Amino acid sequence: MAKLCSAPAELQNVKVQGGFWGRLTALARDVIIPYQWDVMNDRVKGVPPSGVVRNFRIAAGKAKGDFTGYRFQDSDLGKWLEAVAYSLISHPDAKLERTADRVIDLVAEAQTEDGYLDTYYQISGIDKRWTNVRDDHEMYVAGHMLEGAVAYFEATGKRTFLDVMIRNIEHIAKRFGPRRGQTRGYPGHQEIELALVKLYRLEGEQRYLDLASFFIDERVAKPFFYDREKKARKETSHWTDPLGMEYFQAHAPVREQKEAVGHAVRAMYMYCGMADVAKENGDKELVKVLKTLWRNVVDRRMYVTGAIGSSGHGERFTHDYDLPNETSYAETCASIGLIFWAQRMLRIDADGEYTDVMERALYNGALTGVSLDGKHFFYANPLASQPNPDKPGKKLRPGWYGCACCPPNLARLMTSLGSYTYGQSKQTLFVHLFANSEATFTVGKGTVALGQKTEYPWDETVSITVNPDAPRKFRLALRIPGWCRKPALKVNGKRIALDTLVRNGYAIIDRTWAPGDRVELVLPMPVERVYMPTAVKADVGRVALQRGPVVYCLEEADNGKQIDLVELPRDAALKVKKGRIGDVSVPVIHAEGVRLSTPTPAGISTQPPQAKKTRLVAVPYHLWANRGEGEMQVWIREGR
Amino acid sequence: MAKLCSAPAELQNVKVQGGFWGRLTALARDVIIPYQWDVMNDRVKGVPPSGVVRNFRIAAGKAKGDFTGYRFQDSDLGKWLEAVAYSLISHPDAKLERTADRVIDLVAEAQTEDGYLDTYYQISGIDKRWTNVRDDHEMYVAGHMLEGAVAYFEATGKRTFLDVMIRNIEHIAKRFGPRRGQTRGYPGHQEIELALVKLYRLEGEQRYLDLASFFIDERVAKPFFYDREKKARKETSHWTDPLGMEYFQAHAPVREQKEAVGHAVRAMYMYCGMADVAKENGDKELVKVLKTLWRNVVDRRMYVTGAIGSSGHGERFTHDYDLPNETSYAETCASIGLIFWAQRMLRIDADGEYTDVMERALYNGALTGVSLDGKHFFYANPLASQPNPDKPGKKLRPGWYGCACCPPNLARLMTSLGSYTYGQSKQTLFVHLFANSEATFTVGKGTVALGQKTEYPWDETVSITVNPDAPRKFRLALRIPGWCRKPALKVNGKRIALDTLVRNGYAIIDRTWAPGDRVELVLPMPVERVYMPTAVKADVGRVALQRGPVVYCLEEADNGKQIDLVELPRDAALKVKKGRIGDVSVPVIHAEGVRLSTPTPAGISTQPPQAKKTRLVAVPYHLWANRGEGEMQVWIREGR
Repeated sequence: MAKLCSAPAELQNVKVQGGFWGRLTALARDVIIPYQWDVMNDRVKGVPPSGVVRNFRIAAGKAKGDFTGYRFQDSDLGKWLEAVAYSLISHPDAKLERTADRVIDLVAEAQTEDGYLDTYYQISGIDKRWTNVRDDHEMYVAGHMLEGAVAYFEATGKRTFLDVMIRNIEHIAKRFGPRRGQTRGYPGHQEIELALVKLYRLEGEQRYLDLASFFIDERVAKPFFYDREKKARKETSHWTDPLGMEYFQAHAPVREQKEAVGHAVRAMYMYCGMADVAKENGDKELVKVLKTLWRNVVDRRMYVTGAIGSSGHGERFTHDYDLPNETSYAETCASIGLIFWAQRMLRIDADGEYTDVMERALYNGALTGVSLDGKHFFYANPLASQPNPDKPGKKLRPGWYGCACCPPNLARLMTSLGSYTYGQSKQTLFVHLFANSEATFTVGKGTVALGQKTEYPWDETVSITVNPDAPRKFRLALRIPGWCRKPALKVNGKRIALDTLVRNGYAIIDRTWAPGDRVELVLPMPVERVYMPTAVKADVGRVALQRGPVVYCLEEADNGKQIDLVELPRDAALKVKKGRIGDVSVPVIHAEGVRLSTPTPAGISTQPPQAKKTRLVAVPYHLWANRGEGEMQVWIREGR
Repeated sequence: MAKLCSAPAELQNVKVQGGFWGRLTALARDVIIPYQWDVMNDRVKGVPPSGVVRNFRIAAGKAKGDFTGYRFQDSDLGKWLEAVAYSLISHPDAKLERTADRVIDLVAEAQTEDGYLDTYYQISGIDKRWTNVRDDHEMYVAGHMLEGAVAYFEATGKRTFLDVMIRNIEHIAKRFGPRRGQTRGYPGHQEIELALVKLYRLEGEQRYLDLASFFIDERVAKPFFYDREKKARKETSHWTDPLGMEYFQAHAPVREQKEAVGHAVRAMYMYCGMADVAKENGDKELVKVLKTLWRNVVDRRMYVTGAIGSSGHGERFTHDYDLPNETSYAETCASIGLIFWAQRMLRIDADGEYTDVMERALYNGALTGVSLDGKHFFYANPLASQPNPDKPGKKLRPGWYGCACCPPNLARLMTSLGSYTYGQSKQTLFVHLFANSEATFTVGKGTVALGQKTEYPWDETVSITVNPDAPRKFRLALRIPGWCRKPALKVNGKRIALDTLVRNGYAIIDRTWAPGDRVELVLPMPVERVYMPTAVKADVGRVALQRGPVVYCLEEADNGKQIDLVELPRDAALKVKKGRIGDVSVPVIHAEGVRLSTPTPAGISTQPPQAKKTRLVAVPYHLWANRGEGEMQVWIREGR
């Protein structure tokens, strides 16, 4: 069999609307994007000023004052403009585009003559620029701004922002690189690598790809860059950060790394950059490294929700199977980063395992980051929440964050779902994800329109119409999710056996397709009991519930306080019923469980707790904390 | 029934030897005391210099140099001399006594003319003395030195040390108190209060009792002392310690305190002082406060091992039912403090509940602090130990500690067990604890000798011979432990029904005792399953095993790695067999358990773990970590 290779669909060719994703796309467009614009302009009551736009105004000489926020504050604008661009592609909005154009003009005005653009240093002292690449995020900001610029050009055809960022990249390319007189350095927070490949793909300039490759392979070359720049800053202090160089994935040459370590988002963005570079360069060695890292993350360092980076101390990976629930950090951005990485692995190798992980992270780890109202966001995503007077944590999503990486990351993800849904490689059209949507592709010398109708992930049925401009032979690769045990496929009403058709998680249908052909995929979704390996201490003796790609949880609203007193017997029947959270109708899971209670009021006792039957109700994890503050638990103690 | 009131036995009248306690008494005498002497003289290889004796030499002008150790370093010597004194009472040792006399002479030489004695300030700048009573432990040191001095006088009749400490107390009493010109202050670390009552009881000076009362009731009087002294030090910084005044039990007037908060050892020593003062003053209000605090500690903040103070951050109590196992702090000194407090409550009110808690803390929380070889000590006592690459904790007892409060605290406890074993009030002789021992009491105008023969806590039988000098009517109060369901009693071979005889945990036998009378108490010790209230999150669905007063645990040495994969079915038979740890023969518990294992090698799975039968072996918790490094667990997942 020929190797499947699946480039993502161009967003221009896909329209997501209606269904589960339609609601989210609209939420991003109608609520999150305007809300974030207000936040960036410091006019949301109850949210401390972010200073994002103001910083650019000061850098452009249009206002006076000090820099506000974190050193990477500019990146919020980059991600917002990227989200705006994606939204404009599928949903033109002249007013929004004018707003974006105006702020882009401001960005252009803020840029210095030599192409430098980073309002932190421009305001605080440009003589200090590029003196602390490890900590100060200048390249991270450039990467996000460049991603925004590429997207905005693709959405509108306008070059202003793109030209600004090309000038900025030229400035960076001049300063950093392997040639004489250049700094052999690389960012402390990876991001620019993957952005450079986007620019390379758009402009075709080999130099951009080479710079991305350089940043990846230069990592940890000796003498060590972070030490050299520290010395140049005349810092004499010891490197005392107990997290060490693993935090930056700078502990070993990239090609020798075998375990995912350090800051989870940095790791994900680096792996994305590596995958992009490997794809473009046909670098099999790098692909092998990525597959080793993938196995480590997916088998040993990922939660059932597709969340990663279990420790809040350093927002990082710790060690194999260290996946605590109540104290899990599991940053929203890390799950989004995992989605980005999975999509890139899929481009290299169309294996459904990547899509499965992408979908797991999408429907669980990422989506839990945003509230139903679109104005509240989780940064950390624990898998259990119980009251602890000594360590009061965030039990509800706040309105914004001082370090606001996650909300705009969600916005750009939610407005670009189309590009994750479909893929294409030569004569093959891929359906990776199931979403109510329409897409058009160029196949050979003609076009093919695909239309998906589905209420997935709540409903089991996906109906696809295939509309080539004329009868046309091509291959349709339909993803069969790894979680699905008994998928069923019909083409034009005729049942087709799947057993010989499925390869690497995709049903491969080779035929001559005629206009109006219908494909119906039924993905039965009984509730599944899910387990972690026993090496995961936190989940020993515990079970999670999953229906389709959606992980469920118990909330106090349905099950009362002290949720860990609830036990789910292994043989309990799991029934799916219609439920409602806020104004959203969702399937909920009912079961007969057991609740423990103490017969005596207090103290150590030889009397075992009483076990009483109780009605147990589980709801989708990503919708938790939308009904006020309360306990929550994904991993339920299992009785046998 | 007349109120039972139980003064502890004078140590002079009790001799513990043979049996369980005999081994420990000998270990303290033959190993711990000489070993600590070597540590205090900085001559143990592998243990950093403690500087204890050297500090006194410097203060006495016999050596030059800087102060070594913590500001409370002197207290190590106070506790050591106390242990030496107790040991000399039951086991005279001229050489040891000479060593003690010489170091006491050194202490006397170190004392300043005005009675001050604290080598930290004497070496570092005596002008700064008494400027930071909150943090600098001067009164804490005085308390421990005074306890040592009282004990040494009682053991040897020699007054040198006692006179030194009386001069020191007179110095303190002159400076602190309610009168004009005195400082209305109180210690940051309680301890002097209970020592002052010991001195009062010895010398009969009301002033000493009054000073103890003052320190207790002055606590948190306004204007707040710690603020006044801080102001006097011209410290302008905010009080930023997030632990706040609760750490010092200075958050509310002592008589208004209802929950045990803050540093656990400070709390215990304060409650001891309160109990002593209440007893001497007949202060019913204070007794009521103590009983409220007792209920809070025992019902809600105490581990099954009698350990208290669950958080390492501040070595402190947190909130009700917060009793994590792997991260439990549970300082050895805190359990010892609980034993001290329980003994004092027993003096106020001879209720077996106090003895039960005292015994629980003694056989578990305190004893786990020392290794079988007597040269290694735990400071913190977790109830579970699993490998965690990110947080490597102490898995074995180290040879000593920079902050070495626990080892000498164990030594003075282990050498004074006799005073906890028996009690007396007027015509009643109490047998509180069961230990191979002999004791003599004055009853009326004659004497009564009691002899206990027992291998308790390993064996169920306690044989007591009662030997009055002549037939004599008095009451014998024999403790019937709360854990024992079916005790049996014989007097001179004749079975006596216990049901009407037992009041408040004691079997009351009123009779005319004749020389050679024999009492036999059989306390059946089936293994008991023990549970915490369901409010203790860490122990939900878990069971602990207890036999008699001894709590058991699973160790890796017997049960393999990943101990939490072991499950004990509720109906599993629990068999007691002979076992051996090091050179000690102990009963161990065997049961048929279940061990979970993952059928697939890695990752999230819908396959439940396999449950295979396994042989489960539990050993006494206080003996864990004597067979090399390994996992340990008290609370076992329980299958139903």
